[in-house]
Amino acid sequence: MNSFTFYNPTRIMFGPGMADQVGEQVAALGSRKVLLVFGGGSIKQTGLYDRITEQLAASGIAFVELAGVDPNPRLTTVHKGIELCRSEGVELVLAVGGGSVIDAAKAIAAGVPYEGDVWDFYMRKAEVKRALPLATVLTITATGSEMNGNTVITNWKEQLKKAFGSIHTFPKLSILDPTLTFSVPANQTVYGIVDMMSHVFEQYFSLTPNTPLQERLCESILQTVIENGEAALRNPQDLDARSNLMLCGTYALNGGMISVGVQTDWASHGIEHEVSAIYDIAHAAGLAIIFPNWMKYVYQARPERFAQFAVRVWQVDPAGKSTEELALAGIEATRQYFTRIGAPATLGDLNIGEEHLERMAKETVRFGPVGSFKPLHEADVLEILRMSL
Amino acid sequence: MNSFTFYNPTRIMFGPGMADQVGEQVAALGSRKVLLVFGGGSIKQTGLYDRITEQLAASGIAFVELAGVDPNPRLTTVHKGIELCRSEGVELVLAVGGGSVIDAAKAIAAGVPYEGDVWDFYMRKAEVKRALPLATVLTITATGSEMNGNTVITNWKEQLKKAFGSIHTFPKLSILDPTLTFSVPANQTVYGIVDMMSHVFEQYFSLTPNTPLQERLCESILQTVIENGEAALRNPQDLDARSNLMLCGTYALNGGMISVGVQTDWASHGIEHEVSAIYDIAHAAGLAIIFPNWMKYVYQARPERFAQFAVRVWQVDPAGKSTEELALAGIEATRQYFTRIGAPATLGDLNIGEEHLERMAKETVRFGPVGSFKPLHEADVLEILRMSL
Repeated sequence: MNSFTFYNPTRIMFGPGMADQVGEQVAALGSRKVLLVFGGGSIKQTGLYDRITEQLAASGIAFVELAGVDPNPRLTTVHKGIELCRSEGVELVLAVGGGSVIDAAKAIAAGVPYEGDVWDFYMRKAEVKRALPLATVLTITATGSEMNGNTVITNWKEQLKKAFGSIHTFPKLSILDPTLTFSVPANQTVYGIVDMMSHVFEQYFSLTPNTPLQERLCESILQTVIENGEAALRNPQDLDARSNLMLCGTYALNGGMISVGVQTDWASHGIEHEVSAIYDIAHAAGLAIIFPNWMKYVYQARPERFAQFAVRVWQVDPAGKSTEELALAGIEATRQYFTRIGAPATLGDLNIGEEHLERMAKETVRFGPVGSFKPLHEADVLEILRMSL
Repeated sequence: MNSFTFYNPTRIMFGPGMADQVGEQVAALGSRKVLLVFGGGSIKQTGLYDRITEQLAASGIAFVELAGVDPNPRLTTVHKGIELCRSEGVELVLAVGGGSVIDAAKAIAAGVPYEGDVWDFYMRKAEVKRALPLATVLTITATGSEMNGNTVITNWKEQLKKAFGSIHTFPKLSILDPTLTFSVPANQTVYGIVDMMSHVFEQYFSLTPNTPLQERLCESILQTVIENGEAALRNPQDLDARSNLMLCGTYALNGGMISVGVQTDWASHGIEHEVSAIYDIAHAAGLAIIFPNWMKYVYQARPERFAQFAVRVWQVDPAGKSTEELALAGIEATRQYFTRIGAPATLGDLNIGEEHLERMAKETVRFGPVGSFKPLHEADVLEILRMSL
C-alpha cells in the first residue's frame, strides 16, 4: 500500500429518532445563528422542517433559510447563500437534505470567509483556508457528503460541474436518522444505491499492490448494499435495510477510510459529471450507465481484481472459469443488478444522443487524463461514452 | 443495530519513513516543550531515539524524558510523568513505543491538569475534562491505542489493573511507520497478533441484531491478520505483512469504527486484566489462553455467530455440519492458530496455578457482571479461569 494521511473530524450521531437532537447539538457547537439549507420542500411535507425549526427555537438559535437547492446544485444558489450568511451574520450552516444540499452548504461555508468567487475553489484557482462550521441532517442515503469534505457544484452559465475537497468543509456534526429516509421515493433510493456502489468501485478498482484489508472493506460495503438495496425498495420503511444502507453510504466515502493508501480512480465520476453538466440528469443515473462500460473498457489493466470482485462480491462460482471469464461475469452481474433495481442502462434510456459526446469527452480531460486504473485520454472517454449510447 | 455516536479526531500518518515527520508534525501542533515517553530502551538500540530527538532539536522543540515505561505500565511511572510535566512546563506528551507507552502517556496527559490523583479516572471516581495534547510514534502493532482514547494502567500497590476511555485522550497525531516494527521480536509480534484479534472478537461476538456491515468489517480484519501474521513471523522485515498488520491493529480498535451500533463484550479483557494484575504476564499471553475458553463457555448464547465466524474467517467447509459443529470448529481453529504462532494455551504454560483464581474472579466483577454476549458473574469467571488452567 502507499503512504497516507487519514483524518476525519466529523462526529456522526446515528439512529432512529436522532433528528430530535438537532437543536441541542447545534447549540453545543456554540452557534447562535444558522443558515438552514434545504431542497425542494419535501422536508416541509414530511414535517421535518417544523421538527427542526422548533428545536432551533427551543435552543435559542435564530435562523435564516435557503430553500430550493436542486439536485446538481447550482453556483447561483450557492452565491445566494453566501450573501445571506454575510448580510445576516450567520455563524453556522445547517444542511438538511441529501448530498446536493450538503454539497451546496459546504460551498456556502467555504465561500463566506473568502474574498473572491467561491467558484475559484472548483476551478483550482484558490484553496480553502477556512470555512463556517457546518452541521448536517441527512435525509437521503447516497453521497457520503455527510462525513467528508467534498463538494460538487454545477455552474450552469458555463455548463461545468466541478468538485473540490477540503479538510475545512468536513461537517462538524452529521445526524444520521435512518427513519428520515423512509419517505425517499423508489427512484431516489435506486440512485443512492448506485451512487454508494460507484463510490466503492472508484476506490476498489486500483493498481496499488498489497491492500488486502482495504479490498475487503470495500467488498464488505458492496455486499451489504447489494443485500439491503432490494429490501429497502420492497419496503421503504424497513428500518434494518434503511439503517444498513445509511451506514454503508457514509462509510463508502468518509474521507477515504476504506481506501487508505490506495490510489483511487474517479474517472467514471469525471465522465458522468460532464454528462449531467449538459443534460441535468441524476448523477447516479449517469453512473449506472457509465460504470459498467468503464469496467469493460479498463478491466484488462488488472483482470485479477475484477475476478476477485466477481467471486467475493457477486458470489460467482470460480470453478472452471478463467480470470477473464470471471472478470466479465462480475461486470455483467453489476449491469444486471443495476437494471434489476430499475437504474437506466444506456444514455438512450435518458434520451441522450451522440451530439454532445465530443464536448463531454474534451471537458472531462480539461485538467489532464482522468483515472489511475487505466488513465483515460479524450479518445478513451469518447469511446466509453459511445459504448454507453 | 443500536444508535451510536462516532467521533475520532486522531490524525494518522502511515508509511515507511514516516518517522522522519515527527519533528515537523509536533511543531505544527504548536508545542514548544514535550515530554518524551518511551519504554525499556529498545528505541535507543534501534537508533529511533536519536532520530526523533534530532528532529525535535531541529524544529526548536525542547524535551524532557520519561524512560522505562514497562509492559502493564505502572501508576508510579505515570505519577512520575505528571510531576515532570508540571515542574518542566511541558505542553505536549510524545509517546514513542507500543500500547503500554501510549497508555501511560494518556494517563499522564489526563493527569497533568487534574487536581486529584489520576487513578481516580481508572476507579471511576472522576471523569477526564481536559488533557495535554498527545502525539504518538507507534513501534509495536497491537493495541490500537494510537487511534483511540483508551488507557489501561496497573496499580501494583493494590494489584489492580484498570482502564478508562475519554475523548480527551485521543492522540492528536499518530505516526505509523511499519518499518519501525521490523525489529519487534517474535514473541511481541505474536502477542500483537493475539491482541488485535482479541479486540475484534470483543466487538464481533455480540447479540445486537442487524449488523451485517459491522460483522464483515470485523471479519475483514481477522482474515487479514491471520494471513499476514505468519508472514511477519517468517520474515520480520516483510514490509507488506508489517504494513497490513499495522493497519489492522489500528482499525481493530480505533474508537469503535468497526462496531458502531454494536453492543461489545470485553469480558475476556476484564478477566485477563486480573490475571496480569497479579502475575505481570504479557496481556496478550493471557488473552491467548482465556479467549478460546471464553468462547467455549459462551458460544451457545448465539451459536450462529460462531458458525459464521468459522465459515467466513477460518474457511471451515459448512457442508454437512450443524451450527454447533461449525461453532466448535471455529473455536478450535482459533486455538490452533494461536498455538501455531507460538502463543501459550494454558495458565500452566505460564506457571500459574489455581491459588489466586478466586481473587481474580472476584476482582473481575468488582463493578458488576462483565460482558454482554453472556453476562458473567463471579462463578462464571471462575469457571472460565478453571478451564484455562
